[in-house]
Amino acid sequence: MTTTAPAEPYGADPDQARAEVDSALDAFLADKARAVAGQCMPGEMAALLTDFLTAGGKRIRPLLCLNGWNLAGGRGRPLPVVRTAASLEMFHAFCLIHDDVMDRSDTRRGHPTLHRALAVRHAPGRTTTAANRLGASTAVLIGDLALTWSDELLHTAGLSHRQLTDVLPLLDAMRTEVMYGQYLDIIATGAPTVDVGQALAICRYKTAKYTIERPLHIGAALAGAEQSLLDSLSAFALPLGEAFQLRDDLLGVFGDPAHTGKPALDDLREGKATVLIALALRHATRTQADQLRHLLGHRDLTHDQAATARGVITATGAVQQVETMITERHGQALNHLRAAPLEPTSARLLEEFADTAVRRSA
Amino acid sequence: MTTTAPAEPYGADPDQARAEVDSALDAFLADKARAVAGQCMPGEMAALLTDFLTAGGKRIRPLLCLNGWNLAGGRGRPLPVVRTAASLEMFHAFCLIHDDVMDRSDTRRGHPTLHRALAVRHAPGRTTTAANRLGASTAVLIGDLALTWSDELLHTAGLSHRQLTDVLPLLDAMRTEVMYGQYLDIIATGAPTVDVGQALAICRYKTAKYTIERPLHIGAALAGAEQSLLDSLSAFALPLGEAFQLRDDLLGVFGDPAHTGKPALDDLREGKATVLIALALRHATRTQADQLRHLLGHRDLTHDQAATARGVITATGAVQQVETMITERHGQALNHLRAAPLEPTSARLLEEFADTAVRRSA
Repeated sequence: MTTTAPAEPYGADPDQARAEVDSALDAFLADKARAVAGQCMPGEMAALLTDFLTAGGKRIRPLLCLNGWNLAGGRGRPLPVVRTAASLEMFHAFCLIHDDVMDRSDTRRGHPTLHRALAVRHAPGRTTTAANRLGASTAVLIGDLALTWSDELLHTAGLSHRQLTDVLPLLDAMRTEVMYGQYLDIIATGAPTVDVGQALAICRYKTAKYTIERPLHIGAALAGAEQSLLDSLSAFALPLGEAFQLRDDLLGVFGDPAHTGKPALDDLREGKATVLIALALRHATRTQADQLRHLLGHRDLTHDQAATARGVITATGAVQQVETMITERHGQALNHLRAAPLEPTSARLLEEFADTAVRRSA
Repeated sequence: MTTTAPAEPYGADPDQARAEVDSALDAFLADKARAVAGQCMPGEMAALLTDFLTAGGKRIRPLLCLNGWNLAGGRGRPLPVVRTAASLEMFHAFCLIHDDVMDRSDTRRGHPTLHRALAVRHAPGRTTTAANRLGASTAVLIGDLALTWSDELLHTAGLSHRQLTDVLPLLDAMRTEVMYGQYLDIIATGAPTVDVGQALAICRYKTAKYTIERPLHIGAALAGAEQSLLDSLSAFALPLGEAFQLRDDLLGVFGDPAHTGKPALDDLREGKATVLIALALRHATRTQADQLRHLLGHRDLTHDQAATARGVITATGAVQQVETMITERHGQALNHLRAAPLEPTSARLLEEFADTAVRRSA
């Protein structure tokens, strides 16, 4: 979708790594489709998940998982490791599908979101309201299935007993963290405050731990990493993950839809309670704060009103502050990365990933 | 809630078995609450799940799981087996919470459903629409967390490697089956047809396999049961599970809310596509069919209209047909049970469970 996506945090053949992850996903879903063929069972659930997964996505989590494996001394990409990595992408599909329902998003990766597509599919013979409700319900269920199937991908990956028992607690922690983060996020959405600490907590649980730290941990654990190595990875991953999300918050308001694949108005219309907005409200004059509170969370916000909101946010100095926070966290992450006892080639690739993750435009 | 609930399918100390399952759930959730205390994390998620689980529920699945363990020769109730049984109840909490959102139910176990309670909790400062949406979103997330925590309960149960690898495929199958069943169910809801086969398929996946067969399988697998024993349990469980759901369908339309704990109008108002309704439509006169199609799925159905619908359903002969189907399936189940090589005390308890499961009023 863009040429400026983050560099891939893995070996010398990034396209090959991604292809192996996709192939594991495809093979799993094809098996599911075959299993229901000719029965009174809803084959469309596997088909819709296949469409969702092939419509795009950077595969950041599986690739970080593969990198974690290499960082901790794992060689090559054995199939059990690739399937574990693929299970993280299946779990991510669950997250995105449910998030889109909760956020009432219409577009994802340049396509209609799953609940929108399902509302259209189930429209014949129903009122619009009934079709929209059924679209949301069936999307929630397909998300539930993606969560369940992410487990099954892992359970059937062919891991050793030690690998399985090392990975399961990390996976359980990751899932609880992202759900806590999402819960905090949706409660705060629509009612942005000056609470930067809370906004950073959401950022940490929903992104830093979920997108960066835990995928690295899981890959490293597969290679038998000790706790001290996992701690080193956390010291790198958490500041980088915050920087990653802070960049995302800026792109959500100031990004180019042609690059990001989603409308530039969504975050403003929802009234997302990001660090950017908390800082803007904290440093706004009374007039600016009134203007922002009036505009944020307005479902019918026009492009002109959005432009006004962007102008106010920039005028408060919040954009510059967030850029500074990104630079600081990026620096902290690199310092920790360089101090850690990691396999050098993988560590260098991780450094490149960090550089582009905080500078990306999509 | 009632004195006519199904007899408990377990040993000589049913209250003790239930208390052990509940204690495993309580201990797990108390740990979760402690882990977030004092952090920027939503402690209310664990608190709300605790409330949900203590508000009621027959614990049928965990008790069948414990019985499966005994049936296959397992002795007593070791803690890993109890925690596995408890994980099925946590998974069931996920199912009920999501089902209630999808069905827009207001009441569960005599209390407001979770999404309704959450809408009230988040009402201050929000419009009714926004509060209702947030209630649904947060309930979906708490359901997601229950699903994830059902895994964690199992992962941390202390099972042997063999127990874990024997149980995981059964658990994966159970979860896929119930989601397929629910998907078929919600697509058919509001548009009941004469398709008895499809209604029976929903019944099989959503209830027979999920509520009876898989819990027995999982308990038996923990005790090292061979495939032939699992097959014998299926031969008993599938007809009994269908009978169980057919009874549920009758109770959903003709049951006493004081016993069932949910309004007697819900199934009619939703237009649930049950075997009962499919048979009624199939055998209805043209006038009766028109009446039913007019009344079923009507969100504002009055008590008088519901009484009319009940009268029409009975007049078609569908109630009697469903009673006959229940009796036939009950008989099949018992024949298979008596022919199977099962531990006798547990088998007798299972027979008692089967008798009351098809005769219950709640």
